[in-house]
Amino acid sequence: MSFRKLEAPEMNRISPENLHDAPRHPICLMLHNIRSMWNVGSMFRTADAAGIEKMFITGYTATPPRKEIDKTALGAQDCVRWEYRSDPLEAIALMKASGFRICGLEITENSRPYTVMRKNDFPVCLLVGNEVQGIEDEVLMHCDEVLEIPQYGTKHSLNVAVAAGIALFELVRVVRSGM
Amino acid sequence: MSFRKLEAPEMNRISPENLHDAPRHPICLMLHNIRSMWNVGSMFRTADAAGIEKMFITGYTATPPRKEIDKTALGAQDCVRWEYRSDPLEAIALMKASGFRICGLEITENSRPYTVMRKNDFPVCLLVGNEVQGIEDEVLMHCDEVLEIPQYGTKHSLNVAVAAGIALFELVRVVRSGM
Repeated sequence: MSFRKLEAPEMNRISPENLHDAPRHPICLMLHNIRSMWNVGSMFRTADAAGIEKMFITGYTATPPRKEIDKTALGAQDCVRWEYRSDPLEAIALMKASGFRICGLEITENSRPYTVMRKNDFPVCLLVGNEVQGIEDEVLMHCDEVLEIPQYGTKHSLNVAVAAGIALFELVRVVRSGM
Repeated sequence: MSFRKLEAPEMNRISPENLHDAPRHPICLMLHNIRSMWNVGSMFRTADAAGIEKMFITGYTATPPRKEIDKTALGAQDCVRWEYRSDPLEAIALMKASGFRICGLEITENSRPYTVMRKNDFPVCLLVGNEVQGIEDEVLMHCDEVLEIPQYGTKHSLNVAVAAGIALFELVRVVRSGM
């Protein structure tokens, strides 16, 4: 069987000009107090690939334009809709008012596997927090749900950009199931 | 509902001492010609979290010990079993001889969505390639299958460590379904 790699034009990607009319998955990604711009840029790239509606950037997370973000976002920082609020609770309140279910990505009491979401749980706002401390307790309190990625190793965590990718693509899989 | 974060001891992680006896998921991750040690370290961390059997490192991919790998592997480089071979075809032949199905992660002719795998497809060796060029044609030719992560944005790719995380955790989900 031939596994010839496809050239960019064969992939039928959306052009940046047509992006505004393209339907997006009813998912938002919120980055709160992310320290590393490498991670911020990488999550922009993932958010573009996953075709989500929007990113919310809060706290001390850096925002574009920053060359350190561009380095891993590779242009996605100009394609993904994003908004900044310093106060995460204000961002959460706005998302809730728009009907989003706020799902922290963390390992906590009462957290559920990230694979439990079903189509009628959407729209979903996935919230990720600081690389070391995770999401603060006062922010977790305002989540509707906490989702965890089950882990089977000796360590206690995944890189935040990898974890966000795993959870976002699972949400996309659910949204598109039966489509 | 309380979403108190769990402390490390509450997570019941495997101790490094007990790791050798712990059952692993029948999955191998092969890194061929990965340029960035940040990505190599990050994939060690993901491989540990996903509880996979082994990593195969080939071509010019750097191997531990390297401080640049340690920085993102955060100790996982000492917990995940790994082996280096310069020739990727030799590594593929060894994995095939051990019964592994070789699945390239790439967008090609005849590639199938990464969500098609079923329990009887295992053991699976997931193969990822260079950040820019992807997996070379002569290596793709020796794959049993090419899996692609469907993408919905303006860009054509995901970061390789993020893509590996998405695909590995989907494989873990399938392996554990019904367990």
